[in-house]
Amino acid sequence: MRRYLILAPGEFAENAKTAQGVIRYGTDETVAVVDPMLAGKRVSDVVRHLASAAPIVATVAEGLAFAPTALLIGTAPQGGKLPPAWRAEVLDAIAAKLEIVSGLHDMLGDDAEFAAAARAAGTRIWDVRRPPEVPLFSGEAYGVRAPVLLLVGNDCAVGKMTVALELCAAARDRDADAVFVPTGQTGIMIAGSGISVDRVISDFATGAAERLVLEADAGAPDLIVVEGQGAINHPAYAPVTLALMFGSAPDALLLVCEVPHEAIPTFGTPVLDYAQLIAMHEALLATVKPAKVVGIALNTRAIESDEDARAACERALSETGLPTDDVVRFGARALFEAIAPSLIKRRPLAEVP
Amino acid sequence: MRRYLILAPGEFAENAKTAQGVIRYGTDETVAVVDPMLAGKRVSDVVRHLASAAPIVATVAEGLAFAPTALLIGTAPQGGKLPPAWRAEVLDAIAAKLEIVSGLHDMLGDDAEFAAAARAAGTRIWDVRRPPEVPLFSGEAYGVRAPVLLLVGNDCAVGKMTVALELCAAARDRDADAVFVPTGQTGIMIAGSGISVDRVISDFATGAAERLVLEADAGAPDLIVVEGQGAINHPAYAPVTLALMFGSAPDALLLVCEVPHEAIPTFGTPVLDYAQLIAMHEALLATVKPAKVVGIALNTRAIESDEDARAACERALSETGLPTDDVVRFGARALFEAIAPSLIKRRPLAEVP
Repeated sequence: MRRYLILAPGEFAENAKTAQGVIRYGTDETVAVVDPMLAGKRVSDVVRHLASAAPIVATVAEGLAFAPTALLIGTAPQGGKLPPAWRAEVLDAIAAKLEIVSGLHDMLGDDAEFAAAARAAGTRIWDVRRPPEVPLFSGEAYGVRAPVLLLVGNDCAVGKMTVALELCAAARDRDADAVFVPTGQTGIMIAGSGISVDRVISDFATGAAERLVLEADAGAPDLIVVEGQGAINHPAYAPVTLALMFGSAPDALLLVCEVPHEAIPTFGTPVLDYAQLIAMHEALLATVKPAKVVGIALNTRAIESDEDARAACERALSETGLPTDDVVRFGARALFEAIAPSLIKRRPLAEVP
Repeated sequence: MRRYLILAPGEFAENAKTAQGVIRYGTDETVAVVDPMLAGKRVSDVVRHLASAAPIVATVAEGLAFAPTALLIGTAPQGGKLPPAWRAEVLDAIAAKLEIVSGLHDMLGDDAEFAAAARAAGTRIWDVRRPPEVPLFSGEAYGVRAPVLLLVGNDCAVGKMTVALELCAAARDRDADAVFVPTGQTGIMIAGSGISVDRVISDFATGAAERLVLEADAGAPDLIVVEGQGAINHPAYAPVTLALMFGSAPDALLLVCEVPHEAIPTFGTPVLDYAQLIAMHEALLATVKPAKVVGIALNTRAIESDEDARAACERALSETGLPTDDVVRFGARALFEAIAPSLIKRRPLAEVP
């Protein structure tokens, strides 16, 4: 078990998807966060939905007082480079013999200064995004025995990983063995394994997704839940979305949509509506590995009242006929139970206590 | 100018797409081909459509008699690894001070034995598939001034590169400056530059395609013709297809279809028909960078008579309303002239002499 010090200077409140995911869902403990803008507060003061009372400190040096064993780089900036101002903090952590855990595109272990410092300190650098060598897609994924549910969405960063984790927890509550398959750096940090598919060479991205579901299937689970990435009309990241769709060979899709959400940031690309999203994903898969969208998870964080959030779910249901819920706001049990019967056929779910 | 010795043992007749492309379209000369199965013949004896009289020899050692300056690895096997039996031939070429030109996924320059041998011999290894560092997709491609035509198709290896090259030649015949943008290893060998987009890290594949069109636009051409890759319902390679669709931000698409063609090899995935291909590509681009399919290039190599090939073109035209031709069989002029007026608006085309 690690004791994490999380590095997110100036970023923890707004931009630290990785940090917040690990604090909420990771099995390793977070003992402190480094963000000088918020020093003196506690995690739960800043991010309401996190129950952690871990302190926020100004520097790595201050964080050492809480006996961390690892420094986690807590953000994943566009392009995946380490902000230059963070180098000194990383070096301080290495000097204190902390393991460095990073999900950046830039491999910190390939940085000559960091690598030499880690060697000198006798500690290691875990670049979670470094992909293993994977074979090309072979079609073996079509033979996976457990049902595969892939999450897709109307944009990046709308909560696909969170929904996947909440659904797996809801499955466990019914004594069903649902395996979470991480495909991005935060998911890998939470689960302790996985492949950051966006970091794989394009020709091999479908092969990476295939390998992940084959590995998950080896444990004979009741359900495999594959974390999605990007969005099918995202100008920059749609190829990764498609690699997961074809490579993981899903039996069903779950749509994760932030609402309201008009356009994809940076590009202004209009977000697809429910009917367009369903039609596009199902049409792409139709000749490859037919799969239907079986439910919708809304991210209603921008909607203030629960009543309005419920109304948004009702609208999605009436427009699509699909079970819809916000699993963060209202819990994942109802949505899991609505979609599970068509997916998990191996055995009946345990009775709700 | 290079003088190529092409290495394709046992593969030249059937599997040497790279070799055949370089012989037909490359500006560098091919002086001999190594294939012991065909030794004693000439290139044009084996591949009818190639006009080259270059001899086929059994070994690299024999090929040295024709004074090559470079050894070109003439095939691109699935997965991109060098067949182990070819190592000794490559080492013979290095010892003879030939430059090594390879489009394999395996970087020959990273192979310790090859690298040491090249250093000792004072020659170099050009891994054409080694991608440059590219930025993420930015949207700058939306501002490209020249019209961008992207080739898409109903499968891999149906002739997208060939059609692109033939269209560019037809444009030159009308005094229009059409730039061929290679996106795969053979195209790069032919053009002398480009990026093998399938070798780029997935997150950056759209950025690589964008950079290619920005570079092509810098020369203020009349038309940019982007080589396509894969197919939109190819189980393994569709993500690369989509990266080119979104990253090159095309103004129009040209569909390249092998006919008849029922299923994608290895996987048995049904090939999409014309209407499905047109609908799928246009729907994917609709919210990102709207573009229409403006014509169809058929690959009728499996159809024996010209009459039957013409009938296939007529059928495609009547089904889709789009100008259709086989540019290899019947020449590219007619198809180019049918699609050019809607694309090239900067200035009138030169009169046909």
